[in-house]
This record gives sequence, C-alpha cells and structure tokens, in this order.
Amino acid sequence: MAAEFEPKNSEFEAQVRESFARQQLMATIGAQLAHVAPGAVEIELPFSERLTQQHGFLHAGVVAAAMDSACGYAALTLMDGEAAVVTVEFKINLLEPAAGERLVARGRVVRAGRTLTVCRGEAIAVVGNTERHVATMTATMMAVRGRDGMRG
Amino acid sequence: MAAEFEPKNSEFEAQVRESFARQQLMATIGAQLAHVAPGAVEIELPFSERLTQQHGFLHAGVVAAAMDSACGYAALTLMDGEAAVVTVEFKINLLEPAAGERLVARGRVVRAGRTLTVCRGEAIAVVGNTERHVATMTATMMAVRGRDGMRG
Amino acid sequence: MAAEFEPKNSEFEAQVRESFARQQLMATIGAQLAHVAPGAVEIELPFSERLTQQHGFLHAGVVAAAMDSACGYAALTLMDGEAAVVTVEFKINLLEPAAGERLVARGRVVRAGRTLTVCRGEAIAVVGNTERHVATMTATMMAVRGRDGMRG
Amino acid sequence: MAAEFEPKNSEFEAQVRESFARQQLMATIGAQLAHVAPGAVEIELPFSERLTQQHGFLHAGVVAAAMDSACGYAALTLMDGEAAVVTVEFKINLLEPAAGERLVARGRVVRAGRTLTVCRGEAIAVVGNTERHVATMTATMMAVRGRDGMRG
Repeated sequence: MAAEFEPKNSEFEAQVRESFARQQLMATIGAQLAHVAPGAVEIELPFSERLTQQHGFLHAGVVAAAMDSACGYAALTLMDGEAAVVTVEFKINLLEPAAGERLVARGRVVRAGRTLTVCRGEAIAVVGNTERHVATMTATMMAVRGRDGMRG
Repeated sequence: MAAEFEPKNSEFEAQVRESFARQQLMATIGAQLAHVAPGAVEIELPFSERLTQQHGFLHAGVVAAAMDSACGYAALTLMDGEAAVVTVEFKINLLEPAAGERLVARGRVVRAGRTLTVCRGEAIAVVGNTERHVATMTATMMAVRGRDGMRG
Repeated sequence: MAAEFEPKNSEFEAQVRESFARQQLMATIGAQLAHVAPGAVEIELPFSERLTQQHGFLHAGVVAAAMDSACGYAALTLMDGEAAVVTVEFKINLLEPAAGERLVARGRVVRAGRTLTVCRGEAIAVVGNTERHVATMTATMMAVRGRDGMRG
Repeated sequence: MAAEFEPKNSEFEAQVRESFARQQLMATIGAQLAHVAPGAVEIELPFSERLTQQHGFLHAGVVAAAMDSACGYAALTLMDGEAAVVTVEFKINLLEPAAGERLVARGRVVRAGRTLTVCRGEAIAVVGNTERHVATMTATMMAVRGRDGMRG
C-alpha cells in the first residue's frame, strides 16, 4: 500500500516549515517538526504534565493535534504552491495509554487528489529504546485555493 | 433520538468535577466545565492565539480535546461509581473555521452500555449573540473497572 | 442543531428518485425510498434472512448501505442540478443488533457546502409499534460536476 | 507497524469458515473467504451489476460489507474459542470508484485486546493484472462471551 510521491511544489519543505511555525498550538504543546518528505511528515513532542488527562496520560486531544498536523502537512507536501490545507475530518483510535518520554506522530498520504487528500497517521510513545503504538488516525484534508489570502 | 437518563451514581457531578480538575490539559487550554447533567456535559474555552493553527483559527486538536472531554464526562455521568472512563475512538468533522470569542463543546450520550458508551459532540463558536456550529463528533467511551486504581 | 434548507434545484425530488432507481443494490436488498425532503431522505427495507450476518441480524454492510444512500440523497437534494453526488467517507457506530421487521434509515444534512456536504444518519429497527435506534452515521458527501456525464 | 500474532484458539480457521458460511449476506453478494491467517483475513467478490450504485460502481455499502467481514474475522482469529465477534464501529474512506472485475477486501488486526480489537481494512479493485486501492477502513471489534449462545 506504500506509494511513491512526486511533489508538484519544489519548495514543499520550506512551505511546511513556515506554516508549522504559524501553528501557535504546536509551540504551546512543545511540538516540533522532526521530518518532512514528499507525502510524509513527522512531529514530536516531549511528555508534559501540562498536557495530561485525568489518569496522567497525554490527553487524546494532544495526540490528535500532533497527528492532525502531521497528516495535514503530509498532504500539503503534495499540493501545488497556491493551495492551503484545511482538515475536513479525522478519526482516531486510541490503542494504548499515551505514556512515555515523548510522542512521535507520523502522517502519510494514502491518496492525493486535486481537492481531497486522504492520510493515515500513527502515534508512537517512546521510552528509551522502546516504542509503543498508541494511536492510529485516518484523516481527510482539503486543498483550498484563492480564499482570503489563506496559505500553507 | 433524545433520551432521558437515570444516573446510577448519585455523586456523578462531584465525580465529573473532581476528574475534570485532574485533566491538566483543560487548564492549559483555559477550558472550564460549564454544565453537568445526566448524560450531558458542556465545556467552554475562550479563544486564544496560543491555541491556533496556521490560519489563525482554533486548531482541530483543541476543538477535539474539548469535545472528547465533554463526551467522556457525559458518559461518566451514567457509569457506576467504580468505573473510570477512557476514550476508545472518536471521529470529528470540521464544519467551519473555529473562530470567535469562545468555543462551547457539548457532549451527549446516545447509547449507554455496561462496557461501551456512544456519545455525540457538537462544538459551537460564539461571537456576541451569534452561534455557529463548527464541528460534530461521534465518540466511543469505555468503562474500565479495577485497573490500577484508575478512577474518574 | 436542526437547520432549514432551501433547495437550489426545484426538481430535487425527481432527481433523487431517478438516481435511486439506478442504484441496483437498493433493489437487491429490497430497499425503497420512503421520503424525500430538502436536506432529509428516508429509506426503508424489510428484514430478510438473505441479508444477515452470522448471528442472524442484518449485516452492518446492509445497514451502512441504506444509511449511506439516505445521507447521499439528503445531500443531493440541496445540490444544484448539474452536480452528481459521491461518498467521500462515512463512519458508523452499531448501537444494538439490527433485528426487527424492517429497517428505517434516515439521512439529514448537517452542513451543506459548495463541494462538501456533511450528513448524519440514524437507523431504526421497527417491530410492530416499537422502534429501536440501532446505528448512527456521520458521512461526508462530495458534489462532482462535469465528470464523464455522471449525474444524480 | 506490522505485528506477528499467536492465535489462542488452534481451531481459528475452522471457526472463521463456519461463521462466514452463516453470513447469508456474503452469499447474496457473491463473496468468498479467500484467505485466513492469524490476524489477517481476505474476502473476494466478483463485480456484479446487482451491487451497484447510481454511477455503475460497486455501492459503498457492499465495499463496506466485505471489509467489515474481513476485519471482523481477522479479529476473531485471535480471540479465544468462547468468544463471538460483533462490530462496534467502522469508518471507511472511498479513495476511487470501485470498478473492476473483482474486489479484494483485506482485514488485518492492528491491536488485539481482551475485549476490543482494532483492525484496518483495505479494498482493492482488480482488473486483469492491475490493482487499484479503492477504500481504506478502520474498525473496532468486540468479543462477546456467554451471550445467548452467540458464537463465531
């Protein structure tokens, strides 16, 4: 099911990095852009007590935020330079408690269309050398063009 | 489709409030518990630039966090006092940009079972007297019992 | 959350009925179009052993088929006469076993946009005068225009 | 993300085949069990005009039915011999029109728990030697035990 992707926009990485820097939530949760490739983006954040739910694990909303951004930017890498990306919908299954030293959220394009792009996300909790698969996402992203100067 | 619910646990509101207070993410995003009733919970947060995505709207992860907590606590109001609630999965559709003065996230139980509870969430962006429906969620919550002292 | 909708296409009911008649699966599962209104469509089918899963209930795929068509045609009632409707994605929660004399699937538009329409579906199992809520759906529908003579 | 699974029930394949044979919908849509392995099941069906939507492609409900059964039986291969499997929820994204000579639906376990199992499904449309990825699913399956003689 893995696909090879050819970016339409040679500046895709710069565009993703510039847009990510404008996502103030990413700074608020301590997330960083770890990897950007055509159709694949990785975001990491350290575990923090400020981000927990009632049982002391990362809140599902934080896991979802990192995965949604990873999926959205994976989609953006394959869009033309005029498009901005918005999330249409996503679905997340929580497989295990999101506990550990840090969370790695990986987004990957499954199908890129002119208007809609379908992505898959996986979230991994890392403790030392151990990785646990804590969540899986499917997301639909939309390219919007020519709307109120929206970009990235 | 609306249902009337009879709580099994007469202390349901105190239990929800105590558990919500332990969700440190809710304080981090400025969210408060606005309303707790059997099968229905409402959470509010003020708009903040710290919580935005690249176009200046609330990030989908923040909208999802508030709706997930509203749905989870709506489910918890109908569980017995021994149960803790965890999210199995949720799906969110973003209907409009989440812009405004504040966000209201409403969670409501659709079907409460002994192990699984299905909830629906709606998110409303409020500006003055105007309300806009910005997101809809379906979530599956699970009652866990007797696990490592988990509660709430 | 209920909305009033104004159809753009005065022939919306005829268009839905003509398109439904081309869905050969609907005849195969014995489904009929029970009601068509702006933004709301209802489909019914009698219970049949030919449509069951291993425990003797209606298979989730049959329930999903009826709800998907109800949601898709609810979306189509609000599109312009040039658009054809295709399903982008849907999510279904099975609340109870789909047993009874007949199944009623109701689709309703939550948000209609130029390209994407979000719908909600509910499935009801009917036995005599008793109705049970057996499934809930959220679906994203897309208007396609000018593609290979696709219509309805 | 691929996992190796150890079945608890040495009769898993016989149990899946016996249960599949009771799913009368599978016969109605012409579906067959193509492959059964621990944590992975494949179902195939020939394209048929009886199963189409209005544009002449396989109806999303048929694609969903095959994927739901593939996912459910993938989950059942890893359950103990006393458990029956029921679908809690699934989400499907339609990536391309489901056209071709036959449809192959593959279900695979992502995470197997005592009560809940999360699966992923992929649907492939085959024409001659060409395979196209037409749909992706995430599904939550539940093991039920000791309920009214339910099995498989």
